[in-house]
Amino acid sequence: MTSAARLRVGVVGLGRLGKRHAENLAYRVPGAALVAACSPVEDELTWARENLPEPRLYDDYGALLADREVDAVWLVTPSSLHAQQIVDALQAGKHVFCEKPLSLDVGECERVLAEAARYPHLQATIGFMRRFDPSYRDAFDKIEAGVIGRPFLVRSQTTDKNDEDGFFVRFAATSGGIFLDCTVHDIDVARWLLGKPRAKRVFAAGAVALHEGLREYGDVDNGVAICEFEGGQLAMFYASRTQAHGNDTHSEVIGTAGALAIGRNPRVNRVEIFDASGVRNECTGSFFERFEEAFLFEAREFVDAVAGVDAGVGASLGDALEATRIGVALRESLLRGGAVDL
Amino acid sequence: MTSAARLRVGVVGLGRLGKRHAENLAYRVPGAALVAACSPVEDELTWARENLPEPRLYDDYGALLADREVDAVWLVTPSSLHAQQIVDALQAGKHVFCEKPLSLDVGECERVLAEAARYPHLQATIGFMRRFDPSYRDAFDKIEAGVIGRPFLVRSQTTDKNDEDGFFVRFAATSGGIFLDCTVHDIDVARWLLGKPRAKRVFAAGAVALHEGLREYGDVDNGVAICEFEGGQLAMFYASRTQAHGNDTHSEVIGTAGALAIGRNPRVNRVEIFDASGVRNECTGSFFERFEEAFLFEAREFVDAVAGVDAGVGASLGDALEATRIGVALRESLLRGGAVDL
Amino acid sequence: MTSAARLRVGVVGLGRLGKRHAENLAYRVPGAALVAACSPVEDELTWARENLPEPRLYDDYGALLADREVDAVWLVTPSSLHAQQIVDALQAGKHVFCEKPLSLDVGECERVLAEAARYPHLQATIGFMRRFDPSYRDAFDKIEAGVIGRPFLVRSQTTDKNDEDGFFVRFAATSGGIFLDCTVHDIDVARWLLGKPRAKRVFAAGAVALHEGLREYGDVDNGVAICEFEGGQLAMFYASRTQAHGNDTHSEVIGTAGALAIGRNPRVNRVEIFDASGVRNECTGSFFERFEEAFLFEAREFVDAVAGVDAGVGASLGDALEATRIGVALRESLLRGGAVDL
Amino acid sequence: MTSAARLRVGVVGLGRLGKRHAENLAYRVPGAALVAACSPVEDELTWARENLPEPRLYDDYGALLADREVDAVWLVTPSSLHAQQIVDALQAGKHVFCEKPLSLDVGECERVLAEAARYPHLQATIGFMRRFDPSYRDAFDKIEAGVIGRPFLVRSQTTDKNDEDGFFVRFAATSGGIFLDCTVHDIDVARWLLGKPRAKRVFAAGAVALHEGLREYGDVDNGVAICEFEGGQLAMFYASRTQAHGNDTHSEVIGTAGALAIGRNPRVNRVEIFDASGVRNECTGSFFERFEEAFLFEAREFVDAVAGVDAGVGASLGDALEATRIGVALRESLLRGGAVDL
Repeated sequence: MTSAARLRVGVVGLGRLGKRHAENLAYRVPGAALVAACSPVEDELTWARENLPEPRLYDDYGALLADREVDAVWLVTPSSLHAQQIVDALQAGKHVFCEKPLSLDVGECERVLAEAARYPHLQATIGFMRRFDPSYRDAFDKIEAGVIGRPFLVRSQTTDKNDEDGFFVRFAATSGGIFLDCTVHDIDVARWLLGKPRAKRVFAAGAVALHEGLREYGDVDNGVAICEFEGGQLAMFYASRTQAHGNDTHSEVIGTAGALAIGRNPRVNRVEIFDASGVRNECTGSFFERFEEAFLFEAREFVDAVAGVDAGVGASLGDALEATRIGVALRESLLRGGAVDL
Repeated sequence: MTSAARLRVGVVGLGRLGKRHAENLAYRVPGAALVAACSPVEDELTWARENLPEPRLYDDYGALLADREVDAVWLVTPSSLHAQQIVDALQAGKHVFCEKPLSLDVGECERVLAEAARYPHLQATIGFMRRFDPSYRDAFDKIEAGVIGRPFLVRSQTTDKNDEDGFFVRFAATSGGIFLDCTVHDIDVARWLLGKPRAKRVFAAGAVALHEGLREYGDVDNGVAICEFEGGQLAMFYASRTQAHGNDTHSEVIGTAGALAIGRNPRVNRVEIFDASGVRNECTGSFFERFEEAFLFEAREFVDAVAGVDAGVGASLGDALEATRIGVALRESLLRGGAVDL
Repeated sequence: MTSAARLRVGVVGLGRLGKRHAENLAYRVPGAALVAACSPVEDELTWARENLPEPRLYDDYGALLADREVDAVWLVTPSSLHAQQIVDALQAGKHVFCEKPLSLDVGECERVLAEAARYPHLQATIGFMRRFDPSYRDAFDKIEAGVIGRPFLVRSQTTDKNDEDGFFVRFAATSGGIFLDCTVHDIDVARWLLGKPRAKRVFAAGAVALHEGLREYGDVDNGVAICEFEGGQLAMFYASRTQAHGNDTHSEVIGTAGALAIGRNPRVNRVEIFDASGVRNECTGSFFERFEEAFLFEAREFVDAVAGVDAGVGASLGDALEATRIGVALRESLLRGGAVDL
Repeated sequence: MTSAARLRVGVVGLGRLGKRHAENLAYRVPGAALVAACSPVEDELTWARENLPEPRLYDDYGALLADREVDAVWLVTPSSLHAQQIVDALQAGKHVFCEKPLSLDVGECERVLAEAARYPHLQATIGFMRRFDPSYRDAFDKIEAGVIGRPFLVRSQTTDKNDEDGFFVRFAATSGGIFLDCTVHDIDVARWLLGKPRAKRVFAAGAVALHEGLREYGDVDNGVAICEFEGGQLAMFYASRTQAHGNDTHSEVIGTAGALAIGRNPRVNRVEIFDASGVRNECTGSFFERFEEAFLFEAREFVDAVAGVDAGVGASLGDALEATRIGVALRESLLRGGAVDL
């Protein structure tokens, strides 16, 4: 493979997750070349200079978009910027990968879709990375192969290890709340595994187990929800900020002829410990650990998709819109205290 | 122990479950003597004659109640008879154990409670046997001991292996529907593990995965639900008639400092099989297999309770009333398509 | 069933295990009646008086054997007494159940077999209770059904939770050492699951991990061994007195078309605990907990066998002889430091 | 990082495993540059041309060694060539990584060690990749941290899925037999986890379960062994060519205060399947799948070690010598039918 054939990527945003994406693109994605990086934070640019293979550095997104040697942008920026940055990238003729969510606002999602419809030759993917996790992918493939008959129910959860520092409390004003911040992944998983149905009714409830500071934002640290889809399928969701054992992200798909569970015990590795407390395994501490491979594979598949070898696994803008639409309805249900029809 | 000190029990109803109760009381409960059995079915009385230690046999419940040598009745009869049979037993001065549910009708439950209040010296327990399963009991004890902090969420399911014969479809007219027939156990488990809170709002939804015949009864073969309690605790329920792998009854309790899962993999025993399909364990086929010990222990504890050594584990009539109240609300939510406030 | 048809049993020895056998025979074995108990220890007889259904009590074994109303004796006595007590029982015309081992001496085993050959109408079974554990039994049945093809290798272990009190150190002088005391169960399991082959060569080695006091007896607190059978089958054994997590008794059988593991994780029940240490289950603390059901089922099957309904599961005197023969060879290998041919 | 700083590697041998090493070195090891590849097989060079980043290609090992732009050679060649190729590489001033085994002959191993002692500035590592598997590594770290007290027993197995094609039968003449081909990994794991003790006595036995063709080579398709170490530690090994469920490589380490198991259930991913056969997970099909990460991490650590950041995890030539010495003794024990003292 010659470097001419490589997709030249510019990464935007170099926080913790941005750094991971940048390293993957720089060193672990054969068809990609990380040629540029953009951040308004000087420390992040310094990190890029020291750790990446000589990318061109920008502190301004517009300047990056003007770089003719960049084929695709990789957005790992604050959620509130996603929608406009995607539109700008497409207008500049760049393929675009953007971390979830597309937007916390349904109308804004729709505006991006309308604009993107004008650039059908450009790839635009939202980073619902679970689809690229080998276990989720295996489940998807098994469902496609008919292993469990017709799937009709997904149960899925995103539960984080309790963060005593309470970062997410300070983040509550802009996170969109637990359902838009966490459950949005489960919504996407459910729709993906159930054949992309549209929601028709949702119900949500929540509890504040530990973080009282969330109450002023109408947010909770544990949320549960049910979603009814138009085709009669169902989904149940659970999100938590307060788990003691680690990040426990798992999903189940129940079909007419069997069921699949993905990640029910969030074991961090293959070690079991036998001691006075019994037999135990340690757990993944964060989504970073749990989805390390997924982040890598999603980058590889994006590059393949641009090259025309699209496995169709990535979440489209339409998928992201539907996830936001359902997430917003869940938040409304939580606040209002009743079911919400969509 | 002399036989004089034994609790003399008469079992009423000798269907499959009645037989099991009868055998336990006859042979495996040290303080009990099975002295009488009642059934309107001749075959069942024949079975009793051949398999039990010479009980007095009755085909009429009134006649059994008139038997002065019977201290307690053990009702394993059709649900629609429970309420009146309990009242009759108490009025006849007998302790009474009755299989769940107390009644499918909230008003009727309340009438039984009012009547029972007149007989405080008589034991009246509803057979929510899960409370006596050693694993559920261990979880309860661990929660009491503070192992998981303050419990605030229970997820619980009752899912049966698909019965191709479709017995429960024919039974649909009188079962009360999936939530009153199955989920009622999970409701009781949730309340028991969460400190007996009262429900304030529920939401339910369902799907007909395989058994179309249920539609005419407004019933489903898979149901999901959320229950909000007055103290802010939450419960999520799942019930199914269509599992491929067996009876998979399990529960989770999530607290502020940890969580417990009870029976997540419904393994039938300690054997693992390694073959071309991977590593697997077989599953419990029915609640009979799963709760064999629970049925025995509930009988032992009932006898102890009558003898004054009450561990307080059994479900009271008040617990049974609350379970019915919530189950009825779930059915209403399913039919109406929205949340129901209690 | 009339009491006339019951097998009238006299239990001999009422230590911890004797008490359990006695209670099973008294209350949980339909075809049995516990009519007599024998112990030289006054406290044990007092216990019998208070906890058993009015048995005739003896402090002398000969007196029990003279009791014409006793059909079978149940020996839970010190190992060194087993052989002679079995012979005495047979000569007195009683069926006999005896806890393992038959004897620690091969010659003595052979003498019992020779004597027993004269009483073919009397049942004589040695209590290798694992054969009656539902999981071991299921494995046996699966092998019989051909699920794993031809079995050719068993790996089996008996490992106890470390006893800081060091009872077994004081017991070392008479226990026969770790292989005759513990591994004898695994030897029996291996032979049972492999079709009762004869051993041809063994090798053993050991370590003293914690209990230095064992050295003076030539004993170890952890032992490993290999046994080659005449038909080419193999067995590997592990025995330990020093486990931190509990009694971990498990076995694997490997065949030409698959494998079975029995009890690989010695979970005490169906509860999983999620906390800062990860996901864990507690373990069975002792063989008492682990084999509670097995002790009951072996009593039931003995009674059935006497009644002519012999499932052929119990260990014969011949099986017990072979187990001792192999155990003695393992001890010799450990002491001598090389392989031992049988 | 500039490319000047990179370790310039030449890979030798491009069979299945060689290709994997080459791809890792080319694309996934930041400090390495794959600059050369050597194979006598034209197809393999073609593969290198098409899949690697423009390496210089050689069909002769001597020519590669003469390449002044190569800092290190990576030997993935037939076992019989390893020893001489390592010596040649060291004499040419190259660092050397070589797949296991160092040699099947103890004397030859010793000759390499003697030669290597002359080049202390050159890194020479044998590819016992399990040490780099994250789970094995975690176990090692936990032992170092004292989690299980003093480790005194390792049980370890290498068992392959049955290969109906019987490749290893044809390979039997040169493989060294099951213990030198498979168990050598377990020997290395045992020594590594037990603090690198020297063996003093071994015993081995075997069975031909399916592949009769092995008999003429004195080989077996299932082998078991015990190894006693000088410090009193013990190891038990199991190797198999005939597993039905997959490659099942796992190890246990037992210490005075606890135990660790690594990989007891060889699950291929995090998916569980619920169907009529029960609850199951699929298994890793081969060591390739199981140790994918280990191969990558061993390459990274080799590069770091050359750069002076040596975590000391890799197997030294001395470790490889000891593994061969024990493996040869196991083979001798199998053939001779008795214990072998070292």
